[in-house]
Amino acid sequence: MATDHLEQKAFWIFLFWSLCFSLTSAFLAPTFPSSAYRPQRRLADSVQNTGLYRTEFYTQILDHFDFNPQSYRTFQQRYLINDTYWGGASNKAPIFVYTGNEGDIEWFTQNTGFMFETAPHFKALLVFIEHRFYGNSTPFEGDREVLFGNSSNVGYLSSTQALADYATLIIDLKKNLSATDSPVIVFGGSYGGMLAAWFRMKYPHIALGALASSAPILQFEDLVSPYSFNDIVTQDFRSESENCYKVIKGSWEEIQEAGQKPGGLEMLGKSFRICKNLSSSDALTGWLRGAWIFTAMTDYPTPSNFISPLPAYPVKKMCEAIDNAGSGKDTFAKLYAAANIFYNYSGTVTCFDLEDNSDPHGLAGWQWQACTEMIMPQGASGEDGIFPVNEWNYEDRVAYCSATYGVEPRPHWITTEFGGPGIERVLKRSGGNIIFFNGLRDPWSGGGVLKSISRSLVAIVAKQGAHHVDLRLSDKEDPQWLKDVRKQEVDIISSWISQYYQDLAL
Amino acid sequence: MATDHLEQKAFWIFLFWSLCFSLTSAFLAPTFPSSAYRPQRRLADSVQNTGLYRTEFYTQILDHFDFNPQSYRTFQQRYLINDTYWGGASNKAPIFVYTGNEGDIEWFTQNTGFMFETAPHFKALLVFIEHRFYGNSTPFEGDREVLFGNSSNVGYLSSTQALADYATLIIDLKKNLSATDSPVIVFGGSYGGMLAAWFRMKYPHIALGALASSAPILQFEDLVSPYSFNDIVTQDFRSESENCYKVIKGSWEEIQEAGQKPGGLEMLGKSFRICKNLSSSDALTGWLRGAWIFTAMTDYPTPSNFISPLPAYPVKKMCEAIDNAGSGKDTFAKLYAAANIFYNYSGTVTCFDLEDNSDPHGLAGWQWQACTEMIMPQGASGEDGIFPVNEWNYEDRVAYCSATYGVEPRPHWITTEFGGPGIERVLKRSGGNIIFFNGLRDPWSGGGVLKSISRSLVAIVAKQGAHHVDLRLSDKEDPQWLKDVRKQEVDIISSWISQYYQDLAL
Repeated sequence: MATDHLEQKAFWIFLFWSLCFSLTSAFLAPTFPSSAYRPQRRLADSVQNTGLYRTEFYTQILDHFDFNPQSYRTFQQRYLINDTYWGGASNKAPIFVYTGNEGDIEWFTQNTGFMFETAPHFKALLVFIEHRFYGNSTPFEGDREVLFGNSSNVGYLSSTQALADYATLIIDLKKNLSATDSPVIVFGGSYGGMLAAWFRMKYPHIALGALASSAPILQFEDLVSPYSFNDIVTQDFRSESENCYKVIKGSWEEIQEAGQKPGGLEMLGKSFRICKNLSSSDALTGWLRGAWIFTAMTDYPTPSNFISPLPAYPVKKMCEAIDNAGSGKDTFAKLYAAANIFYNYSGTVTCFDLEDNSDPHGLAGWQWQACTEMIMPQGASGEDGIFPVNEWNYEDRVAYCSATYGVEPRPHWITTEFGGPGIERVLKRSGGNIIFFNGLRDPWSGGGVLKSISRSLVAIVAKQGAHHVDLRLSDKEDPQWLKDVRKQEVDIISSWISQYYQDLAL
Repeated sequence: MATDHLEQKAFWIFLFWSLCFSLTSAFLAPTFPSSAYRPQRRLADSVQNTGLYRTEFYTQILDHFDFNPQSYRTFQQRYLINDTYWGGASNKAPIFVYTGNEGDIEWFTQNTGFMFETAPHFKALLVFIEHRFYGNSTPFEGDREVLFGNSSNVGYLSSTQALADYATLIIDLKKNLSATDSPVIVFGGSYGGMLAAWFRMKYPHIALGALASSAPILQFEDLVSPYSFNDIVTQDFRSESENCYKVIKGSWEEIQEAGQKPGGLEMLGKSFRICKNLSSSDALTGWLRGAWIFTAMTDYPTPSNFISPLPAYPVKKMCEAIDNAGSGKDTFAKLYAAANIFYNYSGTVTCFDLEDNSDPHGLAGWQWQACTEMIMPQGASGEDGIFPVNEWNYEDRVAYCSATYGVEPRPHWITTEFGGPGIERVLKRSGGNIIFFNGLRDPWSGGGVLKSISRSLVAIVAKQGAHHVDLRLSDKEDPQWLKDVRKQEVDIISSWISQYYQDLAL
């Protein structure tokens, strides 16, 4: 086991990566909130040492939609709350709710500085609700095997149950605070952003509006190209340097060939400082793929610390590492230099343990969700792609899920429940008050809503933006476009709340 | 057992009534579609002998929201279809879907003439979907005891599962017909109307609009007065005749007193032609109460045959029977004359069997729904009420449901899932394309949406209307206001569809 904290971090990332990608890249969770770097310290300062939040638990029902005996079982759902800035129930001051994603809610809270920074302006109460089956909100006791190894238990992990959890918890909280007239705005990034958008669509009587950041709600069935994710990664690297792109693109075959030679795996292990012997080159290619993809997702304009520390514009830095390695260096040395930026920017890691399977942020449930309802087709396309061609194959997913969980995916369920085809036309006549933010350097943006639908259904598209960069804590080095995005979001949310107060006074 | 068909009918009505009201009047299902009298013959004529519909079955999933092994169980869901008038997929001709209520779908289909009559105008395909656990759409085999006696089975009977059934079935049907661009309008009366409204709210990507007729979606928690239902019954009778109202109002004590005297029950049984000995006066008062309430609900302007045949304006006829009985007749003779209009208008019934428990329309599941999510507070109010004072008592419901099914109600679930408080304000900013029809003589209208919310969220209120009278087959004797209501509905639905085609062409 690694002994260094930074090593640990790098390892669980890899573990998560290898878990998700062991079969196909489509397993990648669209999570990964942006980091407010050193968030605990910075955010704690910003709330004047009153503490970032206090932890509460709500007795939640296991199954909202059925009435069999098992459905009445309850569990403790964690939520975090900060009332430092709240204007109070008597002033009908707003409540900002983060609709938790597929992991520990503390992690997301500490990485959503935007809510803390805008709370004083809005005099908002802040609430961060943990998603069922993640973090400390698990309905069944036991370790990961107990939780996810028994489909009779984990069968209650679903997006619709999670949304109903948020509905019941918010209503109860408002009642307890005598704040039934306080407007609620929901926030979320990635899967949390999907949940925020869906929550506004399904529970408009509870949420006045939603900021859905980098929410790929169209990454289902054939609504968008299955290649969009990998095509955007390709474009991210290629836009920095044609040579960089070519080195990575050409590396897959080179690694495979090297791995098949006598002593090749040992050589690869040494080249990339892998702690333990490689049993095949696949683990190494998965590890590298993770570096390129996660860096593309978090290609932020300022230094960040989302998974492990990264410099500003990390894709550019990776390509500089590749381009500047000089002609004397071989491909592996170039790749290592670039990957090292993602996995070891601090420079303290001595070797990488690809077999570590710790899960400190409690993300394991996503694999189950990717086997049931979150069927988000992804593949790597033809000649120009930075990754080897890899066609989306639904049957592979079915076989994997059957073997792993004994469960069958329901590939049409998400679009049945939440829509998708013609979403602009539908929402135009039946929706309102949603901001869809997307940064076009984010590989997930291909599945996002990129065009405004109406005056209150606004798509904000940032050409230079990455994965829910808008939700990150601001930085004095932020570029003007990012400041503008956040200001636009604040203005839109303000207009919703103003209109709400007007409607209430009628 | 009764030998006469009309007797049978009267008996199951009573059974249903007594089942529902055995504990409290709040158990009354808001069902009861209006009758298109002699519907089979009339409607069959209207579709030029091609048959009213053909019967199909869809393999439906038991639990849409969970992924445990039990959730994957399937059952055959019945739906009825008529394509006589359909303009076809290539013309994107509309699909009209009836969202089935708590009973046999054939019964509702035969009583929703409005859809058949408007289909030629719209070139619409007609589809009537049966609600799970009713009629021939029961997920578990066995008799009523097996179906409703085991909460592990009947636990899957819920409104949200039913709505998801409709969603999956409609999507699959459209796909099979290559009609994905055909707009869908949902229709429903009473509980079916609630489902139609909720379906448009929750699944706007599937239904372009909804005609929700006599849908008491606000009859939950404290959104409306719990007395509204009984107050409207009071008003219906009192508006016809003060004497009639007083006779009924005064009768409850008289019956109770009579029942307590030696030979009293026998006398009561004879007075009302009850077949078997009465064991208490309660059964008799329940039977009478049923006559007054159901007649108030179906106080239609033309003769009807909803449960048993009724004349036009039956409340008026009942009051005439009471008022014209003459001073020589005692109260019981007057009541009998009036009740006879509801239970025996054909005059062929020789005696009434209050112990018959047949359920020909498969309505038994409502009692379960009234014990889980359909907690619709009702009581009878003070001095002026036509019924004895009876305060709504939630604890009574809890005790009853616990004893009967071992199940606990979730009284806040419906408003959590579908909203309620400030519904106008909410829908104004997030909804569209719903017609809420209510007739103010309908006791259920107290729980309806009675004010228009926006240009496309229209409340149509007919002062002289009864329970979803608009959905009935037209009659040459229909009053002008009823013709106007139906024309307005057709015009509004036309405008939705026109706008849809315009949106689609953009």
